Amino acid sequence: MAMRDDKAVITCALTGVLANRDQCPWVPYTPAEIADEAKRAYDAGASIVHIHARDPATGGPSYDPKVYAAIAKEIHARCPLILNFSTGAIGISAEEKVAPVALVKPDIAALNMGSMNYAKYSERRKDFVFDMVFSNPFGEIRDLLKVMNEAGSKPELECFDTGHTNSIGPLLDMGLLKTPMQFSFILGVLGGIPANTDALSFQSKQIPVGSTWEVIGISLVQWRLLAAALSLGGNVRVGLEDNFYLSAGNMAKSNGDLVAKAARMCRDVGREPATVDEAREILSLRPYRKYEG
Amino acid sequence: MAMRDDKAVITCALTGVLANRDQCPWVPYTPAEIADEAKRAYDAGASIVHIHARDPATGGPSYDPKVYAAIAKEIHARCPLILNFSTGAIGISAEEKVAPVALVKPDIAALNMGSMNYAKYSERRKDFVFDMVFSNPFGEIRDLLKVMNEAGSKPELECFDTGHTNSIGPLLDMGLLKTPMQFSFILGVLGGIPANTDALSFQSKQIPVGSTWEVIGISLVQWRLLAAALSLGGNVRVGLEDNFYLSAGNMAKSNGDLVAKAARMCRDVGREPATVDEAREILSLRPYRKYEG
Amino acid sequence: MAMRDDKAVITCALTGVLANRDQCPWVPYTPAEIADEAKRAYDAGASIVHIHARDPATGGPSYDPKVYAAIAKEIHARCPLILNFSTGAIGISAEEKVAPVALVKPDIAALNMGSMNYAKYSERRKDFVFDMVFSNPFGEIRDLLKVMNEAGSKPELECFDTGHTNSIGPLLDMGLLKTPMQFSFILGVLGGIPANTDALSFQSKQIPVGSTWEVIGISLVQWRLLAAALSLGGNVRVGLEDNFYLSAGNMAKSNGDLVAKAARMCRDVGREPATVDEAREILSLRPYRKYEG
Amino acid sequence: MAMRDDKAVITCALTGVLANRDQCPWVPYTPAEIADEAKRAYDAGASIVHIHARDPATGGPSYDPKVYAAIAKEIHARCPLILNFSTGAIGISAEEKVAPVALVKPDIAALNMGSMNYAKYSERRKDFVFDMVFSNPFGEIRDLLKVMNEAGSKPELECFDTGHTNSIGPLLDMGLLKTPMQFSFILGVLGGIPANTDALSFQSKQIPVGSTWEVIGISLVQWRLLAAALSLGGNVRVGLEDNFYLSAGNMAKSNGDLVAKAARMCRDVGREPATVDEAREILSLRPYRKYEG
Repeated sequence: MAMRDDKAVITCALTGVLANRDQCPWVPYTPAEIADEAKRAYDAGASIVHIHARDPATGGPSYDPKVYAAIAKEIHARCPLILNFSTGAIGISAEEKVAPVALVKPDIAALNMGSMNYAKYSERRKDFVFDMVFSNPFGEIRDLLKVMNEAGSKPELECFDTGHTNSIGPLLDMGLLKTPMQFSFILGVLGGIPANTDALSFQSKQIPVGSTWEVIGISLVQWRLLAAALSLGGNVRVGLEDNFYLSAGNMAKSNGDLVAKAARMCRDVGREPATVDEAREILSLRPYRKYEG
Repeated sequence: MAMRDDKAVITCALTGVLANRDQCPWVPYTPAEIADEAKRAYDAGASIVHIHARDPATGGPSYDPKVYAAIAKEIHARCPLILNFSTGAIGISAEEKVAPVALVKPDIAALNMGSMNYAKYSERRKDFVFDMVFSNPFGEIRDLLKVMNEAGSKPELECFDTGHTNSIGPLLDMGLLKTPMQFSFILGVLGGIPANTDALSFQSKQIPVGSTWEVIGISLVQWRLLAAALSLGGNVRVGLEDNFYLSAGNMAKSNGDLVAKAARMCRDVGREPATVDEAREILSLRPYRKYEG
Repeated sequence: MAMRDDKAVITCALTGVLANRDQCPWVPYTPAEIADEAKRAYDAGASIVHIHARDPATGGPSYDPKVYAAIAKEIHARCPLILNFSTGAIGISAEEKVAPVALVKPDIAALNMGSMNYAKYSERRKDFVFDMVFSNPFGEIRDLLKVMNEAGSKPELECFDTGHTNSIGPLLDMGLLKTPMQFSFILGVLGGIPANTDALSFQSKQIPVGSTWEVIGISLVQWRLLAAALSLGGNVRVGLEDNFYLSAGNMAKSNGDLVAKAARMCRDVGREPATVDEAREILSLRPYRKYEG
Repeated sequence: MAMRDDKAVITCALTGVLANRDQCPWVPYTPAEIADEAKRAYDAGASIVHIHARDPATGGPSYDPKVYAAIAKEIHARCPLILNFSTGAIGISAEEKVAPVALVKPDIAALNMGSMNYAKYSERRKDFVFDMVFSNPFGEIRDLLKVMNEAGSKPELECFDTGHTNSIGPLLDMGLLKTPMQFSFILGVLGGIPANTDALSFQSKQIPVGSTWEVIGISLVQWRLLAAALSLGGNVRVGLEDNFYLSAGNMAKSNGDLVAKAARMCRDVGREPATVDEAREILSLRPYRKYEG
């Protein structure tokens, strides 16, 4: 792990597709709302925003490339944030998942690196709240990577377990991935690797020297994983997609609140939040290109 | 990890369903052939046999409970081995997978604890040899466990990644699993946890104190993983299902050859292969019941 | 590791013997100054103070039991903090090291658990700033423990390397130590275990279930180790003995400042600083006895 | 860890200074006896011998350079083994410790990398059998290294704990050590790191990429540590200095017996014992120079 670790790159996942305004009234839906939240995240110390699109009318998920384009344009009208587009979805084709990447050519495109059970269990009800197979076979990973490579969008390799992290071999061998790579370790999904410091450390040991990683934690345990990642030299992600709460019972009023807490935690361990330019250097991204549609 | 580790339980996976006689002429197909191999494994130091059934005519996989019953009867006519039935299969229903367990009520029934990509890649061809989603959602795990519990067959929890190992929580909470549990860590499948000592150690740390584990390695790297497991205090599995070779280029002529090598490796680190009775105690299994059909 | 980890015990090492007022004008020397600093630490969230005595005139180290008694009395006149007495010293006898413990009978007495090189190197000068053998043979550990046990002072087992942590076996066997024990892992001394998250995690895995541990970091890297310890479920120590700085170039003006930062870091990961009563319960200490000399 | 791991370097510690003929009648004392044992080790697969000298009359330790020279000459009259000279001793000066290295200029010279308690405890007697401080301050390490460097003898860095392994920094910075380095991890001394697979793995992670390591285990647990080292990709040491027994109650009749078992364990995991030439390449040693006195 040869990451430059006096700086920590903060990514903000602004909205996701599952979080809704009944749960948290500050979840943004429209491109303008999303861009306003992006600006708040930027002002608080984020250098990257992870973007899902929403149907502006209903708040439901949208995979329409034009909505993604509108979001990118609105964000870049406000600030030069690095754009990271989601491609994870259930029930649509690989082409549809990656169409916004093909159109907008963001700096980064998220890529799910494997299959797994993806479930939630209720101890109270003694039953599963949901119980899915999250299916991302190599064939589809390969198809998505081809489009990302054509678009010049660096893949953010989303790994929910060690088998996902260790799936890079064939993709490197086929020339679809190139070092240095950028990994996200999502911890704590039922069906994936558990949410603790040792699991995060173990994941971070699987990757080639020179590649970079961030932690993604879901719900309140996120903050504990952030401390672990910061101590281990990793980067971090926060945002209303992952967690609404600054602390138990204390809901954030914007993505900016969550980023501000993350930035404070960086500084508390002696690391400074990376600026957009520093993040581009750390992650080996291309120079800024303002997206104007 | 409070395993009694002066003894090591050796399981032999006699035949599987993928290995065939074109690859290795010693792979057994018929119940009598499988039982003869079981006896050789027993004589060499195995205390458990992991059983798949084959269509006696073609060598293809069979899920016919009557074939499983015939195998059990033939084995117990020869020796008092602990019986472990496979339930892993693709393309058949959960009921079909577990029907042999319901009929024969073996000591142990294997249970796949999660979903994953299950692939093989050829560097030479720069392509995947196969690329599947191995799908084992919680709903199906639950259905299989109910039948195993009714049959009094202890589940052998097959874990290809840390997320599988960490899926026990809801099943314990619903009362479908009980401690002490028995885990198998399969390492080195493309899509699962990699095949090395640290990965095995990490898996072994995930389980409750008092539960037991074994390693399953595929192909020649198996022997290196065996050394790792033996040093870590775990149990081991060998057999023609997993690996044909005693060393590079040196094919085993029977399951007994493979078990004999495993037994020697146990003794070389100062551990004795567990007898059938010791294995029953170590794994908290019920007393022997000779299966007579 | 079955530590209750919604709470984190904060210990404050108020003064040490090496830090002086030329380096930091806020280092306390006299019993009253030390007690004033203890009160500031208490108000900010500490539940334990680690105490060294100073010659009130020169600020040099004092091993005079009467000075320790005066400090204890002054502290308890201000607040009911848990008292932890240092016994580490070079150049005095075991009897002298432990005499303050024998007289004052503090709740806790620190105990160095092994020998090691203890050095500091200057890259600029290409030479060692100091280079000592820190000598704590078992014979002396045993002698100190006898006095601590007679005094009813729980030993705080100070471990600078894994061999120190693993030296508990004979002492348990002789009945000189009893579970649950309390460990401090000091990281980053040249000659001891390095200052990183994996080393801390490794140390924390060496101890019996039910025992507790805290991290002690020296200089600025302390804050990063604090994040690691908090994420791993451990307790923490800060204070002017270990580190003067809140961040690079920003010197604390009191032990209270350092404790306040530690308390914020606890809360940021969702853990609350333990009160004095909670710390007594977590560490299995006897009830409060006000020391009045 | 970028070690070439299809080969495993076997070192044989032929005699030590503590083992005597009352304990094991096959311990060699005289130069000719030691060389005969070296030849047996060579024939069985060792490529390096670790040498202590004995007073030929009494069997007690000898630090006489002429005795070392006689041993080297006798060994090279029989086979081209790589020579590794001990420099560890208690009660003699640094100059005396390293005088045989200065005279004979062996390929390798052992170097103790730190201080520690070095003790043995008897559960039966509830007392320590011995209890020493093994003292190796940086000043002495530096003095020994200077002589080794002048002699062209590569230091074998003997590390009994993680703090020893992590003491290389200043020595690299001063130019006294050069990469790639060669480490020996001794496990299981009371006062040092414990004898288990995780501890060995942890030590092996501390060293720079490209450097090499071997395990040294004391008494019967050696064989279990050998399995761990072989699975982790490390090299191994055996010999009558470390352990007399092939298995419980089964004493080796020569160093050759012990090396033969180690060689078999290498082959069992798919690694071949390195020849002398391969070992020279793996460890970056100078070409063979026959020592003729």
